[in-house]
Amino acid sequence: MSNTKPKAVVLLSGGLDSATVLATAIADGYECYALSFDYGQRHKAELQASDRLAETLGAKTHKTLSLDLGQLGGSALTDSTIEVPTHPSEGIPVTYVPARNTIFLSYALAWAEILQSGDIFIGVNAVDYSGYPDCRPEYIEAYERMANLATKVGVEGHKMTIHTPLIELSKAEIIQLGLSRGVDYAMTVSCYAADETGAACGECDSCRLRAKGFADAGVADPTRYRK
Amino acid sequence: MSNTKPKAVVLLSGGLDSATVLATAIADGYECYALSFDYGQRHKAELQASDRLAETLGAKTHKTLSLDLGQLGGSALTDSTIEVPTHPSEGIPVTYVPARNTIFLSYALAWAEILQSGDIFIGVNAVDYSGYPDCRPEYIEAYERMANLATKVGVEGHKMTIHTPLIELSKAEIIQLGLSRGVDYAMTVSCYAADETGAACGECDSCRLRAKGFADAGVADPTRYRK
Repeated sequence: MSNTKPKAVVLLSGGLDSATVLATAIADGYECYALSFDYGQRHKAELQASDRLAETLGAKTHKTLSLDLGQLGGSALTDSTIEVPTHPSEGIPVTYVPARNTIFLSYALAWAEILQSGDIFIGVNAVDYSGYPDCRPEYIEAYERMANLATKVGVEGHKMTIHTPLIELSKAEIIQLGLSRGVDYAMTVSCYAADETGAACGECDSCRLRAKGFADAGVADPTRYRK
Repeated sequence: MSNTKPKAVVLLSGGLDSATVLATAIADGYECYALSFDYGQRHKAELQASDRLAETLGAKTHKTLSLDLGQLGGSALTDSTIEVPTHPSEGIPVTYVPARNTIFLSYALAWAEILQSGDIFIGVNAVDYSGYPDCRPEYIEAYERMANLATKVGVEGHKMTIHTPLIELSKAEIIQLGLSRGVDYAMTVSCYAADETGAACGECDSCRLRAKGFADAGVADPTRYRK
C-alpha cells in the first residue's frame, strides 16, 4: 500500500467539536497528527479524553504540549480565583482564554511546517458558540492569510489552509455529522467544570450548548453528569 | 505622580535587536512588560541576558515562559541533532525555528489583552536579517490584522498595534539607535551557539551580522568572543 495520504495537523481538545473534526479529517483521507494542550485547565479529564479519542478514531500520532498560560492569568478557565459562571452572560464571557485559538493555531502551524503539511483543522464554530472573538470566520481568514506569510511552506509556494468544517453548523448538525463518522460522544468532555472523572456539571455555558445539541439532533445525550 | 503611561508588551530575547526595542519603547513613554521564552535554546545565556537587560533598562516587569517547541523538533536552534552552520547558506537557513515569531507574538497578544494594552513591540528586521519569512513587513501587517480580529481589545473597538521600530534599519543604524537610548551591548547575546557564559562563537550568521553592524557603525564591538 503506498503512503500517499496528505498530512494534516488537527487540534484536539477532547470535546465534542474537535472529536467531530478529527473523525471528519480522517474520513476525508488525511493522515492526522492530533495536537492537544495542557494549559492549566482546572481538570485533566479532557486531556485523557483526547488520548482516547486520538487512538480510537485513528490519528497517526497525538502530542500534548504544555503551555504556560496560567502565568499570564485572566480567564476563569486557567485562573482559579475567577469563578466559572453557571448562567449565560452578556458579551464575551470570563471563560474566554485570551488569544487561546491564536496560540493553539500557532503551534499547529509550527508542527505543520515541520511535517511539510499544508493543512490544519480546528473545530471553531460561529453558530452555537460562546461569544469568543477567535471563533469567527473573519478571524480564521485573517489567520490563514498570516500563516501563509509566516512560513517556509507559504513562502515556497505551497498553500497553508486552515480547515473549519464545523464553522457554519449548528451543534445538532455537528452531532449528526460526528455520529455518521463513528464518533462515540460518551468519550468526549465538554464541561468547563468537569470533575476528574470527566463527569459534567450540567450548568455551565458549554454543558447547556451540548445538551441542547443532543436534544435538537433528536439523539440520546450520552453525557455523564455529576449526581 | 499620576500613572498615565500606556502599557506595552515587549518581546525580549536577550539579543542586540530586542534590547534596542525595549530601550526605544521605554524612551517613547511606554510602561513595558518584557516577555521572554525558554524554548529549548541550546544555551541559557540569552535568558540571563534578558533578565539583566529588563532590569537595567527599566521594564515594569519581565516574564519568561517555557515553551515546548523542542517536542516538535525541526530547527538547529532547538534540535541538537541538527548542526548550527558556520557559513552563510542559500534560502531559509536551518536555524529557522518554524513559526517562532507567530508563537511569540501570540503569547504577547494574550498578555496584552490581559493587561488591556493595545501595544506590542518586536525587534524584527527586514534589512540585515537571516532570511526568515516571519521577519517581513507583510507578515507583520497580516499578523496585526489577525490580532485585531482575535481579541476582545480588537472587537471592542480599541486597536492592537504591532510596533516594529527596527524593521527598516540596518544593523549599524540599530546599534546607533540603541547607543543613543543607553543600551549597553556588552550585556546582549546574539550568537546562535553562545557558551553558558554568553561568549560568542564569532562564526554563525548571527555573529557575522552583529560584527559587521559594529564595524559599519564605526563603534567598538563589545562582544565577548570565545578564545
